[in-house]
Amino acid sequence: MQSLLNTVNQIFSNENFTHQPIHLYEPIDYTLRLGGKRIRPLLLLAANRMFGGSDDNVRHAAIGIEVFHNFTLLHDDLMDRSPLRRGQPTVYRKWDENTAILSGDTMFALAWQYFLAKPHPRLQEILQCFNQTAIEVCEGQQYDMDFETSDNTTIDQYMMMIRLKTAVLLAGALKIGALYPNAPDDDTNHLYQFGIHLGLAFQLQDDLLDSYGDTATFGKQTGQDIRDNKKTYLYLHALQLADPALRDELRTLFSTTPANTDAKVAQVLAIYQQLGIRQCVETAIQQQFTLARQQIDAVQVDPLKKAPLLHLMDTLLDRKK
Amino acid sequence: MQSLLNTVNQIFSNENFTHQPIHLYEPIDYTLRLGGKRIRPLLLLAANRMFGGSDDNVRHAAIGIEVFHNFTLLHDDLMDRSPLRRGQPTVYRKWDENTAILSGDTMFALAWQYFLAKPHPRLQEILQCFNQTAIEVCEGQQYDMDFETSDNTTIDQYMMMIRLKTAVLLAGALKIGALYPNAPDDDTNHLYQFGIHLGLAFQLQDDLLDSYGDTATFGKQTGQDIRDNKKTYLYLHALQLADPALRDELRTLFSTTPANTDAKVAQVLAIYQQLGIRQCVETAIQQQFTLARQQIDAVQVDPLKKAPLLHLMDTLLDRKK
Repeated sequence: MQSLLNTVNQIFSNENFTHQPIHLYEPIDYTLRLGGKRIRPLLLLAANRMFGGSDDNVRHAAIGIEVFHNFTLLHDDLMDRSPLRRGQPTVYRKWDENTAILSGDTMFALAWQYFLAKPHPRLQEILQCFNQTAIEVCEGQQYDMDFETSDNTTIDQYMMMIRLKTAVLLAGALKIGALYPNAPDDDTNHLYQFGIHLGLAFQLQDDLLDSYGDTATFGKQTGQDIRDNKKTYLYLHALQLADPALRDELRTLFSTTPANTDAKVAQVLAIYQQLGIRQCVETAIQQQFTLARQQIDAVQVDPLKKAPLLHLMDTLLDRKK
Repeated sequence: MQSLLNTVNQIFSNENFTHQPIHLYEPIDYTLRLGGKRIRPLLLLAANRMFGGSDDNVRHAAIGIEVFHNFTLLHDDLMDRSPLRRGQPTVYRKWDENTAILSGDTMFALAWQYFLAKPHPRLQEILQCFNQTAIEVCEGQQYDMDFETSDNTTIDQYMMMIRLKTAVLLAGALKIGALYPNAPDDDTNHLYQFGIHLGLAFQLQDDLLDSYGDTATFGKQTGQDIRDNKKTYLYLHALQLADPALRDELRTLFSTTPANTDAKVAQVLAIYQQLGIRQCVETAIQQQFTLARQQIDAVQVDPLKKAPLLHLMDTLLDRKK
């Protein structure tokens, strides 16, 4: 695991993202130097190693998938009007909207440049997997924006949205990592499904920690989703369990922004407690975790070779408690 | 030529661009149904036919290159705040900015989907050509925005900008069209260079017609670039030829937006006439035209097979007179 992290960090610190015209590439370099957990390249490299592939063979793909991920963050931050990313000003705030649009577009093309850098007998398949993922991530972001203004999003729709917006890219990174060393189709599919469940668990945990995380280790104020009237898994699940009167109360709470948001957070958390929401979400996360384990168990390689990926999963799902 | 046009029109009318989520794909379908001259797919198909390729083999690539082109228009219209495209509201006006950003991103991925639809022994090379073009188009748009706020853009810099922003995509379409039927490298390179000169001639003519086009056939008011203080080839060439006093006058004219823009247009045109700008630009276009002819002459196929492409060039450069 430490070896994987060192490799990924080295790959990115050795890479030069600045070119001419400087106004186009400076924001790209800025974005890629902000760091982050580099989860997608880690998954890609881990899957590649699992089937005996050398790091050097997937170095370009590992960069490509991270450049793509950061492109989506750059455009999402603009669409969501987020002022900060990893504690630093977002590109559209530090520069301007046009810079965010065009530098983002260029990052998408740059991701392709990395993926196209090396020949491979299964290149078309690898690129189709990457591109299918890219399309689905866009679709997920659209559903996310659609659901913001919708009053009747179901839990199934929410799960579909986070699958597209978050899970498929983790799944794609794993599958691509396994395609390079020519892993059998059954195994690449198991790894893909492993990534889906890992991604769903990760996102549900994100929702949970927003309400129940330890502020000190979580690194941000709890209850932000409630303050923002964000329809997370917790809220949608509460709506489903509540009786009509309580449902109305919840809907009203999630359609106003009072001066005292602390009181609102306390009210919502009281309702969640009454309905046992925390336990429900913890169960749902555990289910995804179990499904993820089943998929990785089914991969036909020496269990010892699965250890880094399992360790990575534990680290991811243990990150903020 | 008519056969080419019919084929391209049929390809697009048979294609379905609507999917779920509808808020994402409706603007894409709208953009692609607005029409336009479909120059890039025409060039791609013509180059493919020149080397005996069947239309069916490049159908997906022809759609892909047009989808990519329309993606760049969609984002450029947002960045340039253009209200209209082909006489219809632009996407960010008809919907909103976020729709324009995300639908555009999806179109870029959709273009890749078309390019990845078919296997080809030289797929990596074809995709690298496409992606290099995509990166350069982004760089061209950045230079265009940079030059808007710069006082000392040279003619060489301007030519580099229009090469990146306009010419490389025509060149790329031709090269890709020739790569599919496995044309020799010398010929694909000649076609690429032909596209570069064609694109430069096309853009210079666009600049010229803005000042000297026949309003009735050109379809828009002349002098718009002058009203917008746009630093076109005409303006930059005039700056180069003018004496210091006249240069100051021009710079002043291009840094103000008076109430009476007609008077300003007349003043600028008088300076252009004094300096013989129209003739200079016509000469520059003719030079590019000649260079384009040389490149296509050098392609090693039966001259009869070059006729559609030459006809296409004549149509393009004759379009608004």
